[in-house]
Amino acid sequence: MRAVDIITKKRDGGELSAAEIDFFIQGFTRGEIPDYQAAAWLMTIYFQGMSEQEAIHLTMAMARSGEMLDLSDIAPFVVDKHSSGGVGDKTTLVVGPLVASLGIPVGKISGRGLGFSGGTLDKLESIPGYRAELTLEEFKRQLRQVGLVVAGQTADFTPADGKLYALRDVTGTVQSLPLIAASIMSKKIATGSNGIVLDVKVGHGAFMQTEEEAVALAELMVKIGRGVGRRVRAAISDMNQPLGRAVGNALELKEAIETLHGGGPEDFLEHCLIIAGQMLLLAGRAADETEARALLTASLGEGRAWAKFRQWIRAQGGDVACVDQPERLPRARLVETLPAPRSGYVASIDAMRVGLTAARLGGGRAKKGDSLDHAVGVVLHVKVGDEVAEGQPLCTVHANSAERLAEARQQLLAAFTFSDEPVPAPPLIHRLIE
Amino acid sequence: MRAVDIITKKRDGGELSAAEIDFFIQGFTRGEIPDYQAAAWLMTIYFQGMSEQEAIHLTMAMARSGEMLDLSDIAPFVVDKHSSGGVGDKTTLVVGPLVASLGIPVGKISGRGLGFSGGTLDKLESIPGYRAELTLEEFKRQLRQVGLVVAGQTADFTPADGKLYALRDVTGTVQSLPLIAASIMSKKIATGSNGIVLDVKVGHGAFMQTEEEAVALAELMVKIGRGVGRRVRAAISDMNQPLGRAVGNALELKEAIETLHGGGPEDFLEHCLIIAGQMLLLAGRAADETEARALLTASLGEGRAWAKFRQWIRAQGGDVACVDQPERLPRARLVETLPAPRSGYVASIDAMRVGLTAARLGGGRAKKGDSLDHAVGVVLHVKVGDEVAEGQPLCTVHANSAERLAEARQQLLAAFTFSDEPVPAPPLIHRLIE
Repeated sequence: MRAVDIITKKRDGGELSAAEIDFFIQGFTRGEIPDYQAAAWLMTIYFQGMSEQEAIHLTMAMARSGEMLDLSDIAPFVVDKHSSGGVGDKTTLVVGPLVASLGIPVGKISGRGLGFSGGTLDKLESIPGYRAELTLEEFKRQLRQVGLVVAGQTADFTPADGKLYALRDVTGTVQSLPLIAASIMSKKIATGSNGIVLDVKVGHGAFMQTEEEAVALAELMVKIGRGVGRRVRAAISDMNQPLGRAVGNALELKEAIETLHGGGPEDFLEHCLIIAGQMLLLAGRAADETEARALLTASLGEGRAWAKFRQWIRAQGGDVACVDQPERLPRARLVETLPAPRSGYVASIDAMRVGLTAARLGGGRAKKGDSLDHAVGVVLHVKVGDEVAEGQPLCTVHANSAERLAEARQQLLAAFTFSDEPVPAPPLIHRLIE
Repeated sequence: MRAVDIITKKRDGGELSAAEIDFFIQGFTRGEIPDYQAAAWLMTIYFQGMSEQEAIHLTMAMARSGEMLDLSDIAPFVVDKHSSGGVGDKTTLVVGPLVASLGIPVGKISGRGLGFSGGTLDKLESIPGYRAELTLEEFKRQLRQVGLVVAGQTADFTPADGKLYALRDVTGTVQSLPLIAASIMSKKIATGSNGIVLDVKVGHGAFMQTEEEAVALAELMVKIGRGVGRRVRAAISDMNQPLGRAVGNALELKEAIETLHGGGPEDFLEHCLIIAGQMLLLAGRAADETEARALLTASLGEGRAWAKFRQWIRAQGGDVACVDQPERLPRARLVETLPAPRSGYVASIDAMRVGLTAARLGGGRAKKGDSLDHAVGVVLHVKVGDEVAEGQPLCTVHANSAERLAEARQQLLAAFTFSDEPVPAPPLIHRLIE
């Protein structure tokens, strides 16, 4: 088998076999197939796409490029969730303990934020002492003992994905459905979960801008998961405005803590109940959505989700005092509330712009490896559809530099639009895909 | 400017500017743009093509990547010819001295054979002492003194082309019209010719299999040449059967010598008169094809073309005794004539198969850098349309190993088909493009 023949076969629209895809992925991972052949191959996939079978083969080849976790000795059914990334998306912080509190183990590899999009690990690292980098043994031990673990990607899992992603980033081959789907699903499959709920964001503050794209990605990932024997469901959720109200690491953590205490923004709570409900359904822990919701609200109301959260944070080295008293979490020096410039109905809140503003305040990264400021960010006081009077609080900026505060002020005012006519609140979930 | 932005622009069907193409080519040549980005870019060009303007910019960027020869101090008008490669194509050996004998300087960089296709330099190197590797100074000096020089590609000219070609070869991006056209034309332009006749072969023994492809390539090259101020004409010539009768390095040289003496195969002589005629027309040395043909046949008849040939070979270090007495050229030990297996009309002679047979006899290369045997090859005794009787000589094999001779015998018999009905001789030239 020769790499160039596999490139030309795909170039000419042929369907690659499992053996051909595996040859390419393992050869590339081991450095036997050079970057330039991989780059050419990725571009042929960009143009010619991949069949469902090819995408399944690619996913498995990537999963097999590294360690494959077997969790069957820990629990008969472990669930995971994946979000395609958005603004204000602190869902894992609530959904993880919620589902785990009902006896379904959640073992999750999370990422860090980049650009406008936040990352779960960054939010968790607002807690002094939280250790995201676990060995495989630590990951498995905590999953067994606590039933919940959220760690960072290690080089042990899907090394092909890391290498391929770095190449895609500089060769214009990021935006390819089968490549995106295989990248996500290979990691989920390598970490051994039996059930996976995919939260695919759509809108101005998401990587997928149209519902059509988001549905296509979700359907492909569901098919891949099923094709390799996993239970998978997907939710297409709205990311035209930020999810909940807080955007920024410690600010989002506080909002998650409020939610676990039975408070929190209505839309965010509802989103968490839907995603967690899908996870319970996958695990067979509830017969239908009604039963799932009853179980979840009971766990929240009885403080069991909160107790699981504390147990998790402590197990992973986090200072529990800081989650018990969130005012001990990092706080910004400059806090300024922006008033509404006019009366009317909030017509839109540009999630991308809010996300980039939080990142520029220091809460995000322009490129991988940048350090970040956990304290800064934005808290919205209104959501799309709300009626506001001129001068009423619109949002609050948390900054650590006067210059960045001034910049954020301008950006944020441009992020809102208003209407004289009532505006309906956008849907939270556009579609569920089973 | 960033390479990845240029890749995505072309990927999305955008038209690249001269500055963008130059940035990419010079950056790649200097090693600042890595192979993997170049590979991805080449694949976008494969899929999206290039406009005429982009192809012109690419050609000039590649020409500018190295030395650009200025021949204006040598002669007001220097002509060159280029063949896209075929079987039995020894045209340069006759056309060069023919045109130079009429006072039009011919300065040519030639290539070596690869696969089924022969190379002019390999044929010339059948002559003991012939030096193909000249410095730029030597090239210019001989062009000035003799009016004719045929040398090998040096690293001084279009280094971008060498680097790009090596990458295209292993990334499935060879078969792209703008990349092929720019590769050919950049070399012609860098070596400073004012007029270029392109001999684009079409058929089973050519890189272009259909007339449509060949015409598209020829038209693009003519436009590129015009776009950068060169006079260019193209001939689409037939390569379904070998050109002339000899295939193999010394055998082809002998056939060229016969032709310069007023003999040689009819089709080959006619082909040379047409190509040389186009060169005279480009140079303004003849008013029309009739005048050009009269000049050329006079030069042949009076021995001036032959005298120029001898002068050229001697200037480049070749042993003139070997061209004066061609029996002193390398000769194979085993010479066997194959008889026609049946009576009838020759319906086809598979040029590709004959070319590969000559190569496998030792006369060609499977990969770059392989050494070769100048003596071996095949001489046809019939051409398409000829009537033959069973047992009449079909072709003669010149071999240096019994094993290879046996293999060639089988291959060659399979290369001929016969018909009971008369078969018209195929056209020599399908079309002329001005």
